[in-house]
This record gives sequence, C-alpha cells and structure tokens, in this order.
Amino acid sequence: MPEFVPGPFSVPRRTLMGPGPLNIHPRVLRAMSTPITGYLDTAYFKVLDEVVEMLRHVYQTTARTMAVSGSGSAGMEAGLTSLLEPGQKVIICSYGYFCERMVSMAERIGAEVIQVRSEWGRVMDRALLRTALERNKDVRLVTAIQAETSTGVLQPVAELSKLAHDHGALFMVDCVTSFAGAEIKFDGWDIDYAYSAPQKCLAGPPGVSLVALSERGMQAVRGRKRPPSSWCFDLGLIADYWGPEHKHHHTSPIPLIFGVREALAMALEEGVPQRIERHARVAEAFRAGVTALGLRLPIPPDSRLNQLTVIGVPAGIDDQKVRQQLLDHHGIEIGRGLGQFQGKVWRVGLMGESSQPANVLALLSALERVLPEFGHEVASGAGVTAASRVFAEKPVQVP
Amino acid sequence: MPEFVPGPFSVPRRTLMGPGPLNIHPRVLRAMSTPITGYLDTAYFKVLDEVVEMLRHVYQTTARTMAVSGSGSAGMEAGLTSLLEPGQKVIICSYGYFCERMVSMAERIGAEVIQVRSEWGRVMDRALLRTALERNKDVRLVTAIQAETSTGVLQPVAELSKLAHDHGALFMVDCVTSFAGAEIKFDGWDIDYAYSAPQKCLAGPPGVSLVALSERGMQAVRGRKRPPSSWCFDLGLIADYWGPEHKHHHTSPIPLIFGVREALAMALEEGVPQRIERHARVAEAFRAGVTALGLRLPIPPDSRLNQLTVIGVPAGIDDQKVRQQLLDHHGIEIGRGLGQFQGKVWRVGLMGESSQPANVLALLSALERVLPEFGHEVASGAGVTAASRVFAEKPVQVP
Repeated sequence: MPEFVPGPFSVPRRTLMGPGPLNIHPRVLRAMSTPITGYLDTAYFKVLDEVVEMLRHVYQTTARTMAVSGSGSAGMEAGLTSLLEPGQKVIICSYGYFCERMVSMAERIGAEVIQVRSEWGRVMDRALLRTALERNKDVRLVTAIQAETSTGVLQPVAELSKLAHDHGALFMVDCVTSFAGAEIKFDGWDIDYAYSAPQKCLAGPPGVSLVALSERGMQAVRGRKRPPSSWCFDLGLIADYWGPEHKHHHTSPIPLIFGVREALAMALEEGVPQRIERHARVAEAFRAGVTALGLRLPIPPDSRLNQLTVIGVPAGIDDQKVRQQLLDHHGIEIGRGLGQFQGKVWRVGLMGESSQPANVLALLSALERVLPEFGHEVASGAGVTAASRVFAEKPVQVP
Repeated sequence: MPEFVPGPFSVPRRTLMGPGPLNIHPRVLRAMSTPITGYLDTAYFKVLDEVVEMLRHVYQTTARTMAVSGSGSAGMEAGLTSLLEPGQKVIICSYGYFCERMVSMAERIGAEVIQVRSEWGRVMDRALLRTALERNKDVRLVTAIQAETSTGVLQPVAELSKLAHDHGALFMVDCVTSFAGAEIKFDGWDIDYAYSAPQKCLAGPPGVSLVALSERGMQAVRGRKRPPSSWCFDLGLIADYWGPEHKHHHTSPIPLIFGVREALAMALEEGVPQRIERHARVAEAFRAGVTALGLRLPIPPDSRLNQLTVIGVPAGIDDQKVRQQLLDHHGIEIGRGLGQFQGKVWRVGLMGESSQPANVLALLSALERVLPEFGHEVASGAGVTAASRVFAEKPVQVP
C-alpha cells in the first residue's frame, strides 16, 4: 500500500450556523446513501418528476422547475448565460457581495452590465432602478437577490419584478437563502427565472441549484441567435432532460437528487408556511438573546431576514478570534462579514436543520462564555433566558 | 399536508452495467451520509488535501489536481473554457460521440474548431492529426479522449500528446472512463489538462469531475487576455480554492467530496495497477462468455477497452427490447449505442463496483435467457461456463 493512503475517514462534528451550508437533516443524509439507479432509468425519471412537482409547490408556480448541477452560483450562471446574449443590457440591482458576483459573471459572458448600487444592509432604493430603466432602452434582463446572504436583508422582489416588466425586461431573482424560509410567489410576482440551493432552509446537500423558468424565459432561451456559451448551463438542454421527454444531457448527480427529493418531501410534510413560521419564531428567540447580551443588530427590524441574523461585532473585539474559539471550543460555525462588512459583522444562519431551539441555546451559551474573554461583559445566562422566554410562549416543532 | 407530498422514498435496486454511472461502493455510500463540515473549515481543507494527493497518485503527476463541481462534462467544459480564448484554434481528435460534444462546447465559446475525424471504433489515425497540425499554424490546443465511452476503444494518448507539443499546442485529454481502470501517465505523457469522473472505474458518485492541470496549462489560464466566459468553470479560481490558500469560490458539494475521498482511498488500498489488472481479468472473462454466446465483438482485440465492452447487436434483434427486458426482468442496466452506433451495439460497463465476477455471471445468465426469446439461439450455460473458466484460472479479488 502506498505510504500516503489516508487513514479511516473521519471529520469533526460541527454545528453549522453560518450563511451556509447548514447541517443536513439525518433523513436526507440517509437518502443520499441509497444505491443509485441509472440517470436515464424510468425509475429515476419518477424521482425527477417528484422533485419538479415539489419545487413548483415551494416556488408557488406552474412553470418549469429543475435542478442545475453545481452550487447556487451554478444557478446564477445558468440564468445569466442562458437569458443574455453578448452585447445585451442587464441591470443588476446591487446591494451586497453576491450581487457583485452577478456583475462579474455577466461581464464574462460579454453582456453590457448596468450596476445599480443601493446601500448595503438596506432595502433596495426602487427609484434608482426606475431611473436606470428609464435611461437605458432595450434592457434585456433585470436581476436581484431576494435574501442577500452578505447583508441579511429581505428585498422587495415583487416591486422590482414589476418595474422590470413595466420596461419590457425579463426579471431574474436569487432565492438561494430565501427558498423554503421566506415566501416566494414565482407566478404571483411574475418572475422569469429563479434559482436556489438545498443547503440553506431546505436542510439538504450542497451541489445543485434548484431553479424555475417561466414560459417567457423559456422562449427567450429558445429564441436566441446563438446558443449560450456554456453547454453545461444551457437551460434549454437542462429543461429537455428534466421535462417529460427526459432527453439525454449530462449525467445527473443522482445521490444529491435523492437527498433533494427527501429534503423537499420533508418541507412539504411540515408545510412551507409552517416552516417559514418556524424560521421566524427561532430567529425571534435568537434576536432576543443576542440583544440581551448587549449586541447590536444593524439591520432595521422591518427588513431583517429570519434565516440569517447579522450581528455587529462590538468595538475592539477581534471578529476572527471569536469565530475560531466558537469553532474550536464549541464546534459551532458562524459566518464572517463579506466585502464592506468584513470584520464588522458576524452572520448567524438559523436555516433548515439549524432553525431549532437547541442551536439557539447552544450558540447563546457559547457566546456568554466566549465574549467576556474578549472584554465584552455579559450578564451570565441573560441570552439563554431571553431566548427561552420566546420559545416558552409558543413551542417550536422541529421535524 | 398537500396532496402531492410523495410517499416514502424508494427506488428499485439496479445492477448498473452500462457506460456509467455504475453502482457506488457501499463504503462510499456510507461516507456520503457523514454529517458535513463547512466548506471553509480547516477540517474540510484536510479532506480536500487528501483528495489532491490521491488524485496525483492515480494521474501519476506532481501537478495541480482538484475537483470541478458538475458531471464529467463539467470537466470537459472547464478545460475548453479556461484554456481557449475566443478566436483561438483548437484541433479536436474526433472518433466518437463525446468528441462531438467537445466540438459543440468549443464552438459555443467562440473558438475556431478544427475537427479531425477518424473512424469510429478504431484507433485515431495519427497521420490525420499531423497533417492538421502542419496545415494550421498557431493551434492553441489539441484535445482527445483516452477511452471513448461510445466506441470502447483505448486511444494512443502519449502519441497524440507528443504531436501536439511538437507543434507548440497544449494537450487536453478526457479520462472519464479510463481513470483508475487504465494507466494514465499525466507527467510521463506530458499532458496539460486531464479530467475524469468518479462514477466509472472509481465506484464513486456522479456529480464532480476530477482534474489535473500542468504548470504550462496553469500559465495559459493565468495569462489570458480576458477571463473565461464561465465563472464557475474558471480553472484559475477553482485552483485557488483547492490549492494551499483555499481561497473562497463556490460552495463545495461536500457529501460528494466525502464520497470521492473514500473511493480514492479504496483505489489506493487496492493498488491502482492491481485495479487495472482486475478490470482486465473481469473483462477477459466477460468477452469469453459473450463469444461463447455467439455474439460479435466489433472492436479489434488490441485496442479494446477492458472497462467497456462493445457488443454487436445480432441482425434482426431489437436492441431496445432486449435492454428493457434485462432491466425489467433482471434489474440489469446495459448501455445503448450512440450516434453512428445507435441500434447497432450494446455497451457493457465492467468498471469499479461492477468489475466483479458476480456481475459477469449475472449478465451472461440473463442474456442466455433473454436472447433466445428474440430468436438468437444459445447453448444453455455456454456463456457462464466460458467466463467461469477464466475466473477459475486466477481468482479475482474484489474490494
């Protein structure tokens, strides 16, 4: 045996409470270890069809739904590369780190990018988008992110979509962090393309992006002058595989789709509105605890995400050292600030599997131990007591 | 609960013996159900580092190795989009269905494609490549497929690589079906970029592509005038995540990487030369059985793949009906012919988990039952007897 054959496989247990991936539900882990079928097997098509139907339910749509192989960013790239041709104009509503990733992707495919910048950590200024649409004729596509994971703000997607369509543009939205943790009305808000990922509020595995494409969006893809620069991310080809014809494209990541199928089934068993309510309740308790620890919540209450809480790092405290100690001593991962927010905030994800009282109490307890070591004094037990009070009022059921 | 919540998750058991995916080894399935860490966790970086080292071993290289999120086709696209700029010339050695996929991808990114066609089912005519290289100056890249899954032929990669470099071009090779089932000397054959997939001879999961990139290849990526049109498939960004800096890119498909880690560890425990020998032995037994059943092997003996056996469909027999009956009555999946070979051949994969005596005997037994129903008479037990004789000579150890 060569000397570098590694020993038995083992990784430390982590309580994942960052921006994602979160922990995967045990039932989903189990589904991923199911012996696979072929990816052109009618038995597998039945699984795909179930995923299609369940995605429609969560997206509240009758449109085409499917999974793109790759991370949430693959869903982002599939949308941009399929809906835009080189030289076409795209307006990117920009109020966070992942909006800027969209800019980078759209530039790479040769689109004419109009970045409309709005303040990070606040709701998008709709007047800025209106002005940009009035100034630029022939805008092909407007993009936005419903729940910017870098800032923790819920954005007014319905209004942005309406503005886009009033000016004849298509509308694409990132639902990576919102999917199954906040309401999405794909049809009701007249969205053309939405993409998400299972490793957030769905308690599923990372590795695919879950997308919906309107009829108008599909016509745009089918009516292109030239095919998209990417074969793998060509939504027309992917739709042909996921559609009733199940036409051969690339090999499906079967174990991940098994996991997604199970994660979606669990979301529907719980009920999507009930799951959204759970996320709200758990976040409320966590915010009560965080406030009791004398920490600041910089996002205004009316636009805060429930699935991702942004906490201000107290002055003089080393952001990185606190996170490292939470990980090393308590096995808890929380997120750092990105871009403009680097070193200034922590990001705590209470999504899917992590949206439960035990996680809230564990993190608050850990913070009560760790923060005083870095000079931020807290009343012992204050955070846990405040959170427990919320849970006692109305117990949270966790599947 | 909404009416379309599906029932308990279940798929039929399949013995996968097509061109891929093949079955996943139980130890790999188990690894994929391990609770995950974050993808920027140092504990996860240790797993990535192990995968890097083990990939180097199988590729016989000291070059950069990594995984691209997506299927084997994602590895194909990552190479083409990262190594070629629009307008640059690429020569595609074309002798099968997947070579033609490369043509389609290269055209989409705006490269000038020179397709050098050689007969399907035969070794590439090197004179054709030499002539094309002499006629076309400034060829940036030459591509080839080591084991064309559509034809079952092992191609002379070392010679094609030398021709490319003699004319100043980079050389990229598809090792999807050859990886861990045939020898690959990435350094010895002076390859610049190779990609593979775990769901073939590695007995791992589909969903990532396993790649190696030479220093010269990396310089080509870093020295581009414009970044690749794809952000997800930019080998420079992916290398920064997989390299010692582990710089943030997209979220890694963690459960699949856990599976790949375990599948690679198993390959190294068995020994790569021993695994290649196992593939040879199992294929030899299967070919003996197939011949005893009076079926034709259209690929010349000196260029046949061991991991994929191509069988001629006897005249008058309905290709599809035989495959359907194997699946419905015996739970065995074999592959159909693609492109020029459609309806003319079956493709049987004896790779990784399916490269074992039990699978050979099961398929031969099933064929002995099914073929006579379609008018192809066989001597009962002839196939199994011939195969068993080979196994008896030198027993095969299956991990």
